[in-house]
Amino acid sequence: MAKRAYGIDEIALVPGNRTLDPSLTDTKWRIGNIEREIPIIASAMDSVVDVRMAARLSQLGALAVLNLEGIQTRYAEPEAILDRIASVGKDGFVPLMQELYAEPIKPNLIAQRIQEIKQLGGIAAVSATPAGSSKYGTVAAKAGADLFFVQATVVSTAYLSPESVVPLDLAQFCQEMPIPVVLGNCVTYEVAVNLMKAGASGVLVGIGPGAACTSRGVLGIGVPQATAIADCAAARDDYHRETGNYVPVIADGGLITGGDICKCIACGADGVMIGSPFAKAAVAPGRGYHWGMATPSPLLPRGTRIHVGTTGTLEQILTGPAQLDDGTHNLLGALKTSMGTLGAKNIKEMQQVEVVIAPSLLTEGKVYQKAQQLGMGK
Amino acid sequence: MAKRAYGIDEIALVPGNRTLDPSLTDTKWRIGNIEREIPIIASAMDSVVDVRMAARLSQLGALAVLNLEGIQTRYAEPEAILDRIASVGKDGFVPLMQELYAEPIKPNLIAQRIQEIKQLGGIAAVSATPAGSSKYGTVAAKAGADLFFVQATVVSTAYLSPESVVPLDLAQFCQEMPIPVVLGNCVTYEVAVNLMKAGASGVLVGIGPGAACTSRGVLGIGVPQATAIADCAAARDDYHRETGNYVPVIADGGLITGGDICKCIACGADGVMIGSPFAKAAVAPGRGYHWGMATPSPLLPRGTRIHVGTTGTLEQILTGPAQLDDGTHNLLGALKTSMGTLGAKNIKEMQQVEVVIAPSLLTEGKVYQKAQQLGMGK
Amino acid sequence: MAKRAYGIDEIALVPGNRTLDPSLTDTKWRIGNIEREIPIIASAMDSVVDVRMAARLSQLGALAVLNLEGIQTRYAEPEAILDRIASVGKDGFVPLMQELYAEPIKPNLIAQRIQEIKQLGGIAAVSATPAGSSKYGTVAAKAGADLFFVQATVVSTAYLSPESVVPLDLAQFCQEMPIPVVLGNCVTYEVAVNLMKAGASGVLVGIGPGAACTSRGVLGIGVPQATAIADCAAARDDYHRETGNYVPVIADGGLITGGDICKCIACGADGVMIGSPFAKAAVAPGRGYHWGMATPSPLLPRGTRIHVGTTGTLEQILTGPAQLDDGTHNLLGALKTSMGTLGAKNIKEMQQVEVVIAPSLLTEGKVYQKAQQLGMGK
Amino acid sequence: MAKRAYGIDEIALVPGNRTLDPSLTDTKWRIGNIEREIPIIASAMDSVVDVRMAARLSQLGALAVLNLEGIQTRYAEPEAILDRIASVGKDGFVPLMQELYAEPIKPNLIAQRIQEIKQLGGIAAVSATPAGSSKYGTVAAKAGADLFFVQATVVSTAYLSPESVVPLDLAQFCQEMPIPVVLGNCVTYEVAVNLMKAGASGVLVGIGPGAACTSRGVLGIGVPQATAIADCAAARDDYHRETGNYVPVIADGGLITGGDICKCIACGADGVMIGSPFAKAAVAPGRGYHWGMATPSPLLPRGTRIHVGTTGTLEQILTGPAQLDDGTHNLLGALKTSMGTLGAKNIKEMQQVEVVIAPSLLTEGKVYQKAQQLGMGK
Repeated sequence: MAKRAYGIDEIALVPGNRTLDPSLTDTKWRIGNIEREIPIIASAMDSVVDVRMAARLSQLGALAVLNLEGIQTRYAEPEAILDRIASVGKDGFVPLMQELYAEPIKPNLIAQRIQEIKQLGGIAAVSATPAGSSKYGTVAAKAGADLFFVQATVVSTAYLSPESVVPLDLAQFCQEMPIPVVLGNCVTYEVAVNLMKAGASGVLVGIGPGAACTSRGVLGIGVPQATAIADCAAARDDYHRETGNYVPVIADGGLITGGDICKCIACGADGVMIGSPFAKAAVAPGRGYHWGMATPSPLLPRGTRIHVGTTGTLEQILTGPAQLDDGTHNLLGALKTSMGTLGAKNIKEMQQVEVVIAPSLLTEGKVYQKAQQLGMGK
Repeated sequence: MAKRAYGIDEIALVPGNRTLDPSLTDTKWRIGNIEREIPIIASAMDSVVDVRMAARLSQLGALAVLNLEGIQTRYAEPEAILDRIASVGKDGFVPLMQELYAEPIKPNLIAQRIQEIKQLGGIAAVSATPAGSSKYGTVAAKAGADLFFVQATVVSTAYLSPESVVPLDLAQFCQEMPIPVVLGNCVTYEVAVNLMKAGASGVLVGIGPGAACTSRGVLGIGVPQATAIADCAAARDDYHRETGNYVPVIADGGLITGGDICKCIACGADGVMIGSPFAKAAVAPGRGYHWGMATPSPLLPRGTRIHVGTTGTLEQILTGPAQLDDGTHNLLGALKTSMGTLGAKNIKEMQQVEVVIAPSLLTEGKVYQKAQQLGMGK
Repeated sequence: MAKRAYGIDEIALVPGNRTLDPSLTDTKWRIGNIEREIPIIASAMDSVVDVRMAARLSQLGALAVLNLEGIQTRYAEPEAILDRIASVGKDGFVPLMQELYAEPIKPNLIAQRIQEIKQLGGIAAVSATPAGSSKYGTVAAKAGADLFFVQATVVSTAYLSPESVVPLDLAQFCQEMPIPVVLGNCVTYEVAVNLMKAGASGVLVGIGPGAACTSRGVLGIGVPQATAIADCAAARDDYHRETGNYVPVIADGGLITGGDICKCIACGADGVMIGSPFAKAAVAPGRGYHWGMATPSPLLPRGTRIHVGTTGTLEQILTGPAQLDDGTHNLLGALKTSMGTLGAKNIKEMQQVEVVIAPSLLTEGKVYQKAQQLGMGK
Repeated sequence: MAKRAYGIDEIALVPGNRTLDPSLTDTKWRIGNIEREIPIIASAMDSVVDVRMAARLSQLGALAVLNLEGIQTRYAEPEAILDRIASVGKDGFVPLMQELYAEPIKPNLIAQRIQEIKQLGGIAAVSATPAGSSKYGTVAAKAGADLFFVQATVVSTAYLSPESVVPLDLAQFCQEMPIPVVLGNCVTYEVAVNLMKAGASGVLVGIGPGAACTSRGVLGIGVPQATAIADCAAARDDYHRETGNYVPVIADGGLITGGDICKCIACGADGVMIGSPFAKAAVAPGRGYHWGMATPSPLLPRGTRIHVGTTGTLEQILTGPAQLDDGTHNLLGALKTSMGTLGAKNIKEMQQVEVVIAPSLLTEGKVYQKAQQLGMGK
């Protein structure tokens, strides 16, 4: 009856006949009218992106998205707020977040944050929920934002709302916004095509796989990423063939290591959006913590706060040199090395490498190995 | 040779083209002649349902089933008994339960409990084993019970008993009882159809999957729930097509989170029966403990007592607002949010959403994530 | 290329249209010319069977096999030896076993043990390796043994030995022995048929699955039991059809609970051989420990000693009433209850019940449940 | 879409109709012009092979490969260096390795190490990366090396390098070297054939499976070994059929027990290369530690140091008698016993034994067994 869907942990990449030196690989990609050297985007989460992160990641060749409905636009002085979040005990976390989010969003702070990013030489990519996009889209565009992300756990072009609410018409919004709009998240061919038809300049793929996201447990919803990316990438290719319009697909959620990023691109993604790997940077606003953006809902809190620690500088994490050997440092180096090893000159070739289904399940043998590494390692 | 059966942990739900605001979803369902707002039933277990729970859950729009062969109908003052169960040590549990169940069931207490539920404004749904149903069915109906559940680990319409025993004829019982009768548990198409033909007003589905049930270990018996529900739902639809009689299918056993409930309905269930999630309510008779009803057998104790803790009020667990973010609070909110996210307006539409096979196996990557959440979380 | 083989942990049994009271089930079976009420045999292991166990299990309706090459036939006073094994430290175990097995086997002790079993009213079933069978077969038969097991990790009818050694001809041995001979272990249709043709009165099935057996790790050899039993049972049925001779198939290795036993019979076994469940009996010679018989090899020790504890009397374990609810007490009761629940009147009908593939893998949900049971249980 | 690939942990070997005494098995094999009694090669890793190990393994009938770009050829006195590696803390390991590898490789030390091995009566097999092979191939051959391994995580016959670098032409290198050249690693039929056409005297198979190798996590690259070996062995057989040239296939990476070695050969390997099993020898240069050779990269450290402990002498590990019963002692004895049990007289017959897919996944039953072994074992 139901089809089998595969996760990133269940696949591996297979080298072919050619290899090439990593220095010969080209990781360039384009989203909207913006070209970037590195196909990695920092997630629109309080613990990951603030003005400083956005500017720094832009300079390094990547991209960061600022959440227009988070701490940064509710508080003029977010640093003290972030200190409180980092110091509250486990049990106090959900109540604190519900309290902090009771403070209203301030349009003037939206404009201010965008301008601060621009002043530091950054690309101002910003994000809001569909409801928030209706309210703050114009403010953001006027303040000089470069890219706008409309992002919900699950987005659709056919949203039924209560009569009292006028829902966001995604097609109309894309058309009216003077800047490129990225839409997500979705996991199927059909929805991806619909978002592209609505005018998306990029589509986010991923529901349920994230470390700080418990929607699969709470709602039962989620599609493993390898299958979701492959389906949405097929939608992109068909849409491109029919319209000549190439809409990049961005894998979002649950990615931790360089290997995860490589596998997403091999499944068909043009870029990836990551949260927890950047939350480990010394400069990250989370101060060693990471939490989902769904937490503040007073009715149904989802997401949780996890202590990811601070493992290095943002540069070490993104472009190396690595101090750690577990795949969480030098994500770009990992991508370039993987591309070289697989013989892929650029992102389009990387999307064509051979993939095998090879679950890294916890077998007895692996438990034995892990025991050696963890229990006896010093 | 053998077919592959899937569990609830092995599937996930896939969003489609439409989404809708949770406030527009309708979770109404009907069992026998009773319409309920919430398709959740509290299990007929000593640790889950007493008079107060039954009344309160009725008022909240759900339903609870009182076990006619448990503590409540053996003891006039069950509170002291429940205190003893909650305070006995692990090793003393089985002997204590065997001792407590040596006390006979008192028909006058059966009548009294039913009347107490009615007096508090509740719906009096009661349950007994097939043997108990023969003995106490009439008493319960006369006392004003609204619904009668005949429930055994495995029920069949063809039961061979020793000559000295007259077995319960399920068809005759359904016909003679003046109130609707629900039958279970079963796991296959054929048995589900037979129970419907016998006159069931509802069929319980689930053998072996429950947290406080060890029948798979002890007896080797059990069918994973996703497959069992899908098969019995197919039986319901075929029976409905042929007879015009719609007999709801209720998934029973092993459900812990809101996501589990959503997945059962997506597999075809009309409602669910849950025990451990309600055992965690402050008002639950188990006082933070939960145990299976098979325990008292002196020959072959099955089921075990587990400490589930008290995590909130009954309202928080059933209708929110949630204090926990792990899917165990606000089960109705989770169902409505999931339905909205999946574009399902009502239970019938929720039964049609797309399901994928996506085992949430413990892969190495997930162990890594868990280690971060558990080991490093604060 | 290779076919998928399934283990006992990967299957479950499905109830059908009929159920029956456990008291109506008949678990009788026949091996050689011996009829037994209970289809369970205690393994020929030092930690499981001595004279007392053999006699007691015979009286209870089951069977036990005494190892003719173990402690019992090397030492006139085995109790002191067993005390030493139970008290040695973990590191000293393998050297101690190598030392203890340097003591030669004494034919007069073989005869004495067999006579002791008979004097206590027991059935004297004994076991030896192929080499040991050559040497001690006649002694055992003369001393009054009732059944002879020729047992090796892997047995074949075509054994190539060094020139200096005359290998045991299994067919000749079966013909010349005045008592029935059981042969094993095997895992495939073809070898099972060959053993039957060689004159086996029973065939043992199982290579690699046992708790105290590490042959899969050491040798890479092993076939999951559900598949092995099904294949060998098919061999039995075909051989029976062709020759009229019914040779029972006995599942041997890795069985822990009543549910495991039920599943083996449902896969086609006529009986089971178990070690560790009986090693937990107060009367067991292992004194709470259990170890494999392959340990003493000076070249390649296999098997290991595990502490299984003493969990009850032999009667509690075999025929109940159970004190534990984890499936390790009242194995016969579990089998009869499972047969009743599945509608099987006798072993032949139990071999026909429906089996589904339903791996009880450690999913995230189950880890959650286990955490509740283990971590929070009291 | 993608094909399913299987790991060594997911298969098991099936006994057939014949068995034979282990003393009758013949494990001889040939690589280049060298015949060896034991088809096991020690990996070219600092923690595994030095002059003494190479000589000793040669005398025992096996083979060891000395890394020409490791500690041994950078330092005249490597013992003090190895002491430092063994005593540094976990956090200091990567920086220390980066520092130690900053010391240049000395051609005169290459010659000296080869001569030392020869003087001790050993076979001098040496290894370098493709770049190192260009530089040091001639030196090694002139110094008297017997076998040359060109080894990279992934090797290909079509390597694209930056213009400033002249890449190693593998075919030319094989032709010009006066000694046999072994090439690797690869995982597919096509690349294996290409390496054979390039003149390889042996092909190493294995990418990503090793204990001290994190390329799957860092790069997403890796193919489970059972599938990789079977594919490359098919390439060998086809190439042999077409050219008459038999190029042995060597399984490399992730092998821990004797059973692992048996399974690789049953999948089609002619020999195996192992690291961590030998790192546990008292004589091993790692002093109880084991680490990957990819660690020193300043840009992207891969591999990690694990504490494997010292579990016995080299003889105990390779040829027994075993002191441990977990499959890590007496690897040759395990292979001969497995071959005898499976009825394989020699390596070619061992490559033909039946394989089943039988994942030794962590099922609930196994966790129960493990708990008994680990938690309650003494």
